[in-house]
Amino acid sequence: MTEKGDKWILMATAQTPTNIAVIKYWGKRDENLILPVNDSISVTLDPDHLCTTTTVAVSPSFDQDRMWLNGKEISLSGGRYQNCLREIRSRACDVEDKEKGIKIEKKDWEKLHLHIASYNNFPTAAGLASSAAGFACLVFSLAKLMNLKENQSQLSAIARQGSGSACRSLFGGFVKWIMGKEDNGSDSLAVQLVDEEHWNELVIIIAVVSSRQKETSSTSGMRESVQTSLLLQHRAKEIVPKRVVQMEKAIQNRDFPSFAQLTCADSNQFHAVCLDSSPPIFYMNDTSHRIISYVEKWNRSEGSPQVAYTFDAGPNAVLIARNRKVAAQLLQKLLFFFPPNSDTDLNSYVLGDNSILQDAGLNGIKDLEALPPPPEINNVTAQKYTGDVNYFICTKPGRGPVLLSDESKALLDPETGLPKKA
Amino acid sequence: MTEKGDKWILMATAQTPTNIAVIKYWGKRDENLILPVNDSISVTLDPDHLCTTTTVAVSPSFDQDRMWLNGKEISLSGGRYQNCLREIRSRACDVEDKEKGIKIEKKDWEKLHLHIASYNNFPTAAGLASSAAGFACLVFSLAKLMNLKENQSQLSAIARQGSGSACRSLFGGFVKWIMGKEDNGSDSLAVQLVDEEHWNELVIIIAVVSSRQKETSSTSGMRESVQTSLLLQHRAKEIVPKRVVQMEKAIQNRDFPSFAQLTCADSNQFHAVCLDSSPPIFYMNDTSHRIISYVEKWNRSEGSPQVAYTFDAGPNAVLIARNRKVAAQLLQKLLFFFPPNSDTDLNSYVLGDNSILQDAGLNGIKDLEALPPPPEINNVTAQKYTGDVNYFICTKPGRGPVLLSDESKALLDPETGLPKKA
Repeated sequence: MTEKGDKWILMATAQTPTNIAVIKYWGKRDENLILPVNDSISVTLDPDHLCTTTTVAVSPSFDQDRMWLNGKEISLSGGRYQNCLREIRSRACDVEDKEKGIKIEKKDWEKLHLHIASYNNFPTAAGLASSAAGFACLVFSLAKLMNLKENQSQLSAIARQGSGSACRSLFGGFVKWIMGKEDNGSDSLAVQLVDEEHWNELVIIIAVVSSRQKETSSTSGMRESVQTSLLLQHRAKEIVPKRVVQMEKAIQNRDFPSFAQLTCADSNQFHAVCLDSSPPIFYMNDTSHRIISYVEKWNRSEGSPQVAYTFDAGPNAVLIARNRKVAAQLLQKLLFFFPPNSDTDLNSYVLGDNSILQDAGLNGIKDLEALPPPPEINNVTAQKYTGDVNYFICTKPGRGPVLLSDESKALLDPETGLPKKA
Repeated sequence: MTEKGDKWILMATAQTPTNIAVIKYWGKRDENLILPVNDSISVTLDPDHLCTTTTVAVSPSFDQDRMWLNGKEISLSGGRYQNCLREIRSRACDVEDKEKGIKIEKKDWEKLHLHIASYNNFPTAAGLASSAAGFACLVFSLAKLMNLKENQSQLSAIARQGSGSACRSLFGGFVKWIMGKEDNGSDSLAVQLVDEEHWNELVIIIAVVSSRQKETSSTSGMRESVQTSLLLQHRAKEIVPKRVVQMEKAIQNRDFPSFAQLTCADSNQFHAVCLDSSPPIFYMNDTSHRIISYVEKWNRSEGSPQVAYTFDAGPNAVLIARNRKVAAQLLQKLLFFFPPNSDTDLNSYVLGDNSILQDAGLNGIKDLEALPPPPEINNVTAQKYTGDVNYFICTKPGRGPVLLSDESKALLDPETGLPKKA
């Protein structure tokens, strides 16, 4: 297996984006293989602002598989990790690093153990699809380390078994998860519809909404919906297939009005199905509802949609503006209604590509206090909700996974195979 | 027409209950005739706590139809009033009051004008189905005044043309509005399923929830849902017909677990359809959601449902407890989470049959402050939401419309035909 004894460590580090569905995945037809009841479509978010970085390492000196998430060791015993690791190991190939004098044969992988370190550049608990980016990055980095011959779509079918939406994080731009027909899930995988350059005028602003509620996990929520909602099957069988066709067309044509209409309607219908479950599941709260109302009112006043909204299994709003000019206006409106607490610095309240603040003429809290109420809002209803949004993230459609060749970016120490000190 | 010249006034005064649907009406197939897309079932609420009183008067001295609602004159020019008045006038019969020496022939009614005064014994704007009780009382009192031969169901088809849910207020107990098949609406009417004595253990607590949102009227909300929700037709055609059969059976058998399951599921599905509309309609707010969560948690902890919840086109919760003992426990829990502001008297915070306060051992604010967190709630989440509920009303299933023969109850002055001074 080796020419250097047991001392060597081989590593790979990758960076993988999150994604947000514009046609929603809600409901599994197979819980173990994670096979969905309908196709879904997502936009990949720029990994500069939201991504997972994962370093995977292999060494004959490792005596068990271990994983650290954001510096803290976590258990790999869960079925989802085990499914991914098993599927990847079974496809591992010969690997040779001549420079380091390391040679691993296909058959060796079953005996070798792995160390995995993963880090999100955004708050894990904020409901920002961290598991999608996480499993996608795990699968992608291991595929590189183990020299898998599978293409990205085939890898996506493995990532799917970790977290359904993870399969869509294997590509940049707009991505479709085809539900597939096979019982073994082999044809339930992601394909890229268009890359991130196709519709690069879009700007995405995420409002991370404060919540006092403990939320239902998407796994158990989906299960309850499948078991109890009388509307879910109708949605999955009759409504989504048509919407997917329409959405693909809207994306191909960069037809923002159709894109926005479909995105908003599908988000609302997903939450309608949650509400139709027993007991009902509420992911959106009053702040989410207010954001929807403001966007709907603005879109109506403009005569055609300027901004689409979509909400996943939580109260955070993901707002997609048709271009940067609209995004600057949107940010003004959002900051009017949801200003930060007075002791908050604007640069820690608007994260990601906060150069949009300058476009919006907002260089500090003073500018923000001087914002007039949006003209489409009746003055009487122009109430401010300070503190109801924790922060905003400005981003855009982004690229798919990349391998980071710069070893200084690795999260594991190349000597010890343990997480680097923070 | 008369034996006393033009000085006489003939009056009738009636009292009519509100009702709350347990299988919801949402969506019209004919906007003018108010014909629904599905059957609905309601429980009539005790008029002692929630009712409309209406006095109607006729006199040759009146020179136009006039109406006063809660003492303030309102216009009768709207299509809904006009439809009801036209339908009733066309069915009016000979009337003779020998004592007063008044005789009105069938043909006279077309020329005679009416005065109408209506009063709700509950806040009109609180979202408590005031239009249902109002139109039912208008039709019922005019039918008495004009000596209509139609039965209650036939009258309900007239009240329906004022406000759809009004047709269900023509009966006490549990009432079904049969959607009907005829284009002219003649078979779209209400029938009584069981009277108010059939299931008289039930206790109903209404939480009138504070709201800062301006709500979509049910008329325009329904229209938007019919036009835009892809789930509404499936609900109306495939789901509700089965639920109506199950609900009738649950009511006949006083099967509270089935009744509660169907009531909650149908309320949630109605709100799901609202959310599936474009733009989405939100009637429930975070307080409504919290009440649902508490009830669901308690029902689960008890192993079988103790309380059903249902919400109409607004954030108010209507909670149906299986008996008075459960209602007292429910009130304790509700008052723990939603105490009144400190300067509020308990008797102005719990209205209606507030003898339940004594059952619950709550004789004043002090007792309320001493309430322990409900055991089914984790102590950590046992947060209080002071001020989020405006007040509670305790009531029960109640009787249908009654004629008030006591002339002192009339809202119009028998001499002038104008509203009595308050």
